[in-house]
Amino acid sequence: MNLEAFIKKEKDKQIVLVQGLGFVGSVMSLVVANAINGNYAVIGIDQDTGAGRKTVDLLNSGVFPITADDPKIQEYFESACKRGNFFATVDPAAYSAADVIIVDINLDVKKDSNAQYALNNYSVNLEPFTAAMKTIGAYCKPDVLILVETTVPPGTCKNVVTPVIKNALKERGLPVDKIRIGHSYERVMPGPDYIDSIQSFYRVYSGIDNDSANAVEAFLKTIIRTDKYPLTRLGDTNATEMAKVLENSYRAMNIAFVVEWSRMAEEAGVDLYEVVNAIRQRPTHSNLMYPGIGVGGYCLTKDPLLASWSRTNLIGGKDKLAQSETAVSINDQMPRYAFEFLEKRYSKPLAGVKVLLLGVSYRGDVGDTRFSPVEYFCRCLLAAKAVVSTHDPYVSNWHELDLKPRQILSEALGDRPDIAVISTGHRIYRQEETIKALLESEPLWIYDTIGFLLKEQIDKLRQKHKVIVLGRGDL
Amino acid sequence: MNLEAFIKKEKDKQIVLVQGLGFVGSVMSLVVANAINGNYAVIGIDQDTGAGRKTVDLLNSGVFPITADDPKIQEYFESACKRGNFFATVDPAAYSAADVIIVDINLDVKKDSNAQYALNNYSVNLEPFTAAMKTIGAYCKPDVLILVETTVPPGTCKNVVTPVIKNALKERGLPVDKIRIGHSYERVMPGPDYIDSIQSFYRVYSGIDNDSANAVEAFLKTIIRTDKYPLTRLGDTNATEMAKVLENSYRAMNIAFVVEWSRMAEEAGVDLYEVVNAIRQRPTHSNLMYPGIGVGGYCLTKDPLLASWSRTNLIGGKDKLAQSETAVSINDQMPRYAFEFLEKRYSKPLAGVKVLLLGVSYRGDVGDTRFSPVEYFCRCLLAAKAVVSTHDPYVSNWHELDLKPRQILSEALGDRPDIAVISTGHRIYRQEETIKALLESEPLWIYDTIGFLLKEQIDKLRQKHKVIVLGRGDL
Repeated sequence: MNLEAFIKKEKDKQIVLVQGLGFVGSVMSLVVANAINGNYAVIGIDQDTGAGRKTVDLLNSGVFPITADDPKIQEYFESACKRGNFFATVDPAAYSAADVIIVDINLDVKKDSNAQYALNNYSVNLEPFTAAMKTIGAYCKPDVLILVETTVPPGTCKNVVTPVIKNALKERGLPVDKIRIGHSYERVMPGPDYIDSIQSFYRVYSGIDNDSANAVEAFLKTIIRTDKYPLTRLGDTNATEMAKVLENSYRAMNIAFVVEWSRMAEEAGVDLYEVVNAIRQRPTHSNLMYPGIGVGGYCLTKDPLLASWSRTNLIGGKDKLAQSETAVSINDQMPRYAFEFLEKRYSKPLAGVKVLLLGVSYRGDVGDTRFSPVEYFCRCLLAAKAVVSTHDPYVSNWHELDLKPRQILSEALGDRPDIAVISTGHRIYRQEETIKALLESEPLWIYDTIGFLLKEQIDKLRQKHKVIVLGRGDL
Repeated sequence: MNLEAFIKKEKDKQIVLVQGLGFVGSVMSLVVANAINGNYAVIGIDQDTGAGRKTVDLLNSGVFPITADDPKIQEYFESACKRGNFFATVDPAAYSAADVIIVDINLDVKKDSNAQYALNNYSVNLEPFTAAMKTIGAYCKPDVLILVETTVPPGTCKNVVTPVIKNALKERGLPVDKIRIGHSYERVMPGPDYIDSIQSFYRVYSGIDNDSANAVEAFLKTIIRTDKYPLTRLGDTNATEMAKVLENSYRAMNIAFVVEWSRMAEEAGVDLYEVVNAIRQRPTHSNLMYPGIGVGGYCLTKDPLLASWSRTNLIGGKDKLAQSETAVSINDQMPRYAFEFLEKRYSKPLAGVKVLLLGVSYRGDVGDTRFSPVEYFCRCLLAAKAVVSTHDPYVSNWHELDLKPRQILSEALGDRPDIAVISTGHRIYRQEETIKALLESEPLWIYDTIGFLLKEQIDKLRQKHKVIVLGRGDL
């Protein structure tokens, strides 16, 4: 089927177009195609590039492009295929058919870091995002609802999206007073609750005017379980845009906090886990984080910088957000700290030493490797000329490092590593079969970078192996 | 009664000496004298200075030196007076009678800030604390239990207290292997739950060796409701010392986070309260703080600096705790920001303008003015030549500024202020009588610096007055 035929076939339905078919847009498409309280035709559109066309072709041939541990993904995709209310394309003509356009494209930050992974500088280029808005403006209906879900620097909907779209409509000789533009951010979390993190979670929204906010509200109510997770309307798009980067900055800062204290605990020979556990008894401190190898993923590694950038570039403030920038710089260095911890404990040079990384993605039970701290940790190992092998049941091609993680643990251990590093919290690494396999291996070092092993597992493993845990002092 | 007579009278009891009779030590004395599970004689000792002798004389004459909103304070004090198991002194001979010595003295940080209240530098002088330990060592029994409750830089019990005490014992020709030294920090909170914040709350403890830790545990079980609030033993004194400054650094940083975002929200015209409320729905973000006039009190304003100082000076690390130092500097500037917010909104010069401060202490329903943000806010007003008057039912003498706050609200309003500033969250300021009194005043500006007024109260007050709220955008 082609685009025209799809639009014709679905002409009695509202058409929702999702712009950007990445980790958010592709799953958002499924949620809309399976709307709990509506009957939409969904068009997913991606860029007319090699990667974009590949995604589109996969989708249209019945293959979902993302592997995740959430069975609902496959279920929702099959259901959409069966109903036939989903179509993917790279053809911008699709915009002209849409009643609702959901913007799920990326907006990246370019970091300039030093050799120690500390942040020197960074830049935000709004051009690609602005170009995408111009494309919408060149094709869209004058009364379309444009719902921006992309994490944008606060001020973007007011200062970029709205003028770009209205100018484009003007140039096309169309009225500009019927357009509705809103902002609402998802809190999507790839993993076992991927679909639910969109469909069954709290959401904040706003519009550039009252009509826009009402239209966003009406739409969200058809796709989100708002009976259990009521929507929150904020005063304007600045507020919701700010809320998103604020909440991610908060989390990034709280992680950075523990990064600094991990270092100090190491210096003082203190088990930071027991300290954190003792403090978390206080309700006011229950969100204190645990030590780890670092923070990864697409959001926490850049959103604090988007926030700080917008303050001086879009909002008109004169200061940066010092804490947000510091947090990113501290977090970015954590994988190197984790490496140095190993280097110091192992005491012999790591050149030629066989190191097996158990997990390469940035999050447990997910195959997402974007900005994984394991990547930077691995680069440190490679720079020290260690011989690195990898295992990850969720990642068969680690494209950032051009490595093919083994899928079977026994094969990975069959390489007879000198050191096995627990680098990602995949459930399997805490399961009995893993402990058993480790106990059957030749004596080796086991380095838990995320405090993932249980105490009794550590005790068992120590009967044969040397076990060290980041943040646990001399445990 | 004199010290000798008291000791003789109580010779069959264990004698607990509390060193330092400030906001912690004085109340700790009451908790020990009224031990839930023990029968102690308590000696409170303070420095032989004017202030120290005044405190001691007050206590011995049946007057508790601290005013607080917790009725249990008076109740416990009366009960101790009635039993006669409490005595205060400045005589160091008291140390020689003690079976347990609880250290509750201050350990201060000296800040060097610029005219904008931003931190340039700071210093920690361990000398007074070390001298106090020397005094203990010169008199104490060789098998005394020394329980340090003072917030100290991590490393102090190991690197300062222990060698000082042992050297002193050696010099006296006494054995050094029977001494027990431990650390356990209270989480005291002056206010309506003053006693309970010591007696009925979680506590973390440790010792320099196993015997010491056991002795601390046995003692704490007699004074704290450990059935409801179980104790947590940590590996060593470094760990508990670190836990205390870590938890306060965490809180200071979380406050500083919102300080920075308050400024940005102001620039973007965003109501930060509604943003924070929307985000707090997420369990992982429930501890996000609200905007305010700043952070005060003895602990949060200095503990992050103690932590950072100890890292390079006692623990042997080479880096500072960047986030902790940044947090203090940001927080210290908040009162000035709060002033600038008013200055900008009021738009006319503040010289000669009559400003009434409602509340001068740093915390609601407490008379504690130590490092109150209201002090720095007030200094900004005075520098702008505003005519400042004050009201605080808990503070009759604001010694930091040598002002006498009015105790009666109607009298304070009788001065016909041009601007009334809600600067402390005393309950009374949200009560109907206050709203009524404000509605009966001549038209004025009301400036809520802490988001204390309810929305409907603001609406009511706006019928007559101009109301502005820090962090609320253009509400």
